[in-house]
Amino acid sequence: MKADIVVIGGNPAGGTAAVTAKKFHKDKSVLVIRREPESLIPCGIPYTLSMLDSVDDGIKPIVAAKKAGVEYLFGEVTTVDLKQKTLTLQTKENIEFDKLIFATGSNPFTPPIPGNDLKGVVTIRKEIEYIKKINESLKDIEKVVVIGAGFIGVEVSDELAKSNKKVTLIEAMDSILPLAFDRTFVDPVKKTLVEHGVTIRTGEMVDSIIDEGGKASGVRLKNGETIEAEMVILSIGYRPNSGLAKDAGLEIGKFGGIIVDEYLRTSEKDIFAVGDCANHKDFFSHKTSNIMLASTGASEARIAGMNLYDLKVVRQSKGSIAIFSSSLGDISIAAAGMTEMAAVEEGFDVVVGQNNGKDHHPGKLPNCSDQSVKMVFAKKSGLFLGAQIIGGQSTGEMINILGLALQKHMTAADLSVLQYGTHPMLTAGPGLYPIVSSAIDVLCKMDF
Amino acid sequence: MKADIVVIGGNPAGGTAAVTAKKFHKDKSVLVIRREPESLIPCGIPYTLSMLDSVDDGIKPIVAAKKAGVEYLFGEVTTVDLKQKTLTLQTKENIEFDKLIFATGSNPFTPPIPGNDLKGVVTIRKEIEYIKKINESLKDIEKVVVIGAGFIGVEVSDELAKSNKKVTLIEAMDSILPLAFDRTFVDPVKKTLVEHGVTIRTGEMVDSIIDEGGKASGVRLKNGETIEAEMVILSIGYRPNSGLAKDAGLEIGKFGGIIVDEYLRTSEKDIFAVGDCANHKDFFSHKTSNIMLASTGASEARIAGMNLYDLKVVRQSKGSIAIFSSSLGDISIAAAGMTEMAAVEEGFDVVVGQNNGKDHHPGKLPNCSDQSVKMVFAKKSGLFLGAQIIGGQSTGEMINILGLALQKHMTAADLSVLQYGTHPMLTAGPGLYPIVSSAIDVLCKMDF
Repeated sequence: MKADIVVIGGNPAGGTAAVTAKKFHKDKSVLVIRREPESLIPCGIPYTLSMLDSVDDGIKPIVAAKKAGVEYLFGEVTTVDLKQKTLTLQTKENIEFDKLIFATGSNPFTPPIPGNDLKGVVTIRKEIEYIKKINESLKDIEKVVVIGAGFIGVEVSDELAKSNKKVTLIEAMDSILPLAFDRTFVDPVKKTLVEHGVTIRTGEMVDSIIDEGGKASGVRLKNGETIEAEMVILSIGYRPNSGLAKDAGLEIGKFGGIIVDEYLRTSEKDIFAVGDCANHKDFFSHKTSNIMLASTGASEARIAGMNLYDLKVVRQSKGSIAIFSSSLGDISIAAAGMTEMAAVEEGFDVVVGQNNGKDHHPGKLPNCSDQSVKMVFAKKSGLFLGAQIIGGQSTGEMINILGLALQKHMTAADLSVLQYGTHPMLTAGPGLYPIVSSAIDVLCKMDF
Repeated sequence: MKADIVVIGGNPAGGTAAVTAKKFHKDKSVLVIRREPESLIPCGIPYTLSMLDSVDDGIKPIVAAKKAGVEYLFGEVTTVDLKQKTLTLQTKENIEFDKLIFATGSNPFTPPIPGNDLKGVVTIRKEIEYIKKINESLKDIEKVVVIGAGFIGVEVSDELAKSNKKVTLIEAMDSILPLAFDRTFVDPVKKTLVEHGVTIRTGEMVDSIIDEGGKASGVRLKNGETIEAEMVILSIGYRPNSGLAKDAGLEIGKFGGIIVDEYLRTSEKDIFAVGDCANHKDFFSHKTSNIMLASTGASEARIAGMNLYDLKVVRQSKGSIAIFSSSLGDISIAAAGMTEMAAVEEGFDVVVGQNNGKDHHPGKLPNCSDQSVKMVFAKKSGLFLGAQIIGGQSTGEMINILGLALQKHMTAADLSVLQYGTHPMLTAGPGLYPIVSSAIDVLCKMDF
């Protein structure tokens, strides 16, 4: 069997790479090889635990991709021969290709805690059957410990608390979501989680998971304290699934990602890698970063898909910006670029603007939420470095304004004269629009 | 009496000019002169007709401005002497100033229709007492005709229909919101208005308002048909309130706005004009435009406020982009830049990308809305010219991403590699993010 363009992996990065490749190379055949005939929308997995009626409601259909002319093969790739441009499936079948895109994603990291292999200890894998089993087990479970308060840990804890589980969320660092948000800024999120019934334990290290006849019955903290739980969810982060690429001989980076250039080309001609399995560079420092986001993967996938045969679209930014958003229902949060703490650690002399207001005007309109925007700038140059938002339903798109401002290397002066639209039921007021107000505050502080 | 900086008018443009002036010139005294001690948030006025409990809930407090050190004087300015740098109030009091900012806003346009002065014929003025009287009259009224289907006409019609009035909305052009949206794109909004109970009559000219003993009893269309109504609301648009400035000797533009340069400086040294009373230039054509938006006014006010004594902040864009948003509750709409029709009329060879999807992913999550994004680009160059969105609560901030993209002169190729964030409960999916998908569609169409 032969296909012009083969993509290994069919989640957001792989699927987007395949569809884009087909759109821009109509005469080429595009084949996606992936394990499961159906796959979950990865970022939707926490919501299959409570908000959605069934795990199946979280499935992303591949109808549109098939209609666009992408072919699918369900199976596992065992080896890739980069020189011969062939790959072998577990079924021993060989497939020839002209261009190959690795989009093999990531796997949850299991920390080396004693008891991590006990029954009742789970990770949030991107596999339907595995997630269905977790859902099944949860029916008879009252107490859950979640270890790791990144986005997945926070979202899973919130969902489980909402379905009346007794949830304890444990984080080794001294704040929840410590990589995306500054400590005090994230306090309202912490408050909301507690109101929803989550017990939060930050600054606590887990010593071990308690073994009760081969089954987890709780966790023991380093301070000796024990917390009961029938299920322990490990949400410490993910690692690139790059074993296949490494075995094939591709260069692998510091955090395990496949090394790629600006156009997602690996060290080998005609071989690309996109998404979680690829090595990313930080937008500001150009250092290797361990960012893993479906949206970042999809962006990379488009660049690869368009540039497979020749460089058609020039990548403008020389690194990946982390643009996060999340929601606990009544409170939504988002962040882009660097936190104040991260910027200071990187060596920036920073100046910060923050505005606390409402996301509707007047504030007495229905469905109005509190809205806080914090923006971090480099002192002298005024370069915009990062932002954090807590607000309502508009938070997820608002952070994309700021993500674009970062990509365009805007300064506080640029943002102070930004043109924008406002509406009573959709945004803050015209005179108080928080992105511009924060930029103005910063200009004033800069003894401008 | 003397103040260093005097602002005439205290709505979004005037208020923002005063606060910004004080922030950037702490040692100067800043005085706002306006008619009413309290004023309504202008864009919130339609919502005082039903959604808000009382008109007073739509008032914008001036506490923050006062706290920032801005002084207020309530009265009417009758003359301004530009050379002597003094102004006179109706009370005959004189006030000296060093810098003066006109922020006198706009007044509703009353079309020369017979019967336009009858009892029961109203406009949407930005005056508390007038709006309170409309609210009072509405209590005993069943049938209302609204003439003019711009944003104010649509919002007022929707609000009145929601409070069980029988509303007929009449528009001379062949579509509602004809300046902001292309005809077919806006069809779902039309459908929603009809579902809410509004009768829409587009392509109909009003001949006269029917006189029944000095009181309006309905309107007569040019085709002879009559429509009964106890109240007729004229929402044909607004005109700059520039009489005072004109009498003082300032240059006035084609649509009645005070002529200003890029830094909102009038033809006279030390005199500025911002907001609805100022003359605006279109972002693309640099022709005089009749855009009147509170957000545009606030943007201009900041530029004036920062640049009163010397040019501190350089204005980057050489004209005003119209960035609109609105909401009918269950459906929200927004537009920025040119419609497809306007671009063609301006002489552009255009290519259009449109994506119809959902604003959450998977679509089975609660509060998920349909989301359509239409983007217009110039053919060869790929320059982004304008966009229209129909969607949910995130629509108002999403259009600000596109507003920024317009200000940064982005192209379809630039937008195709945009980095952005996504989340199941806040945005479309990572592989289907509509701004990028539309840009990709356009690249494909351009035989790229």
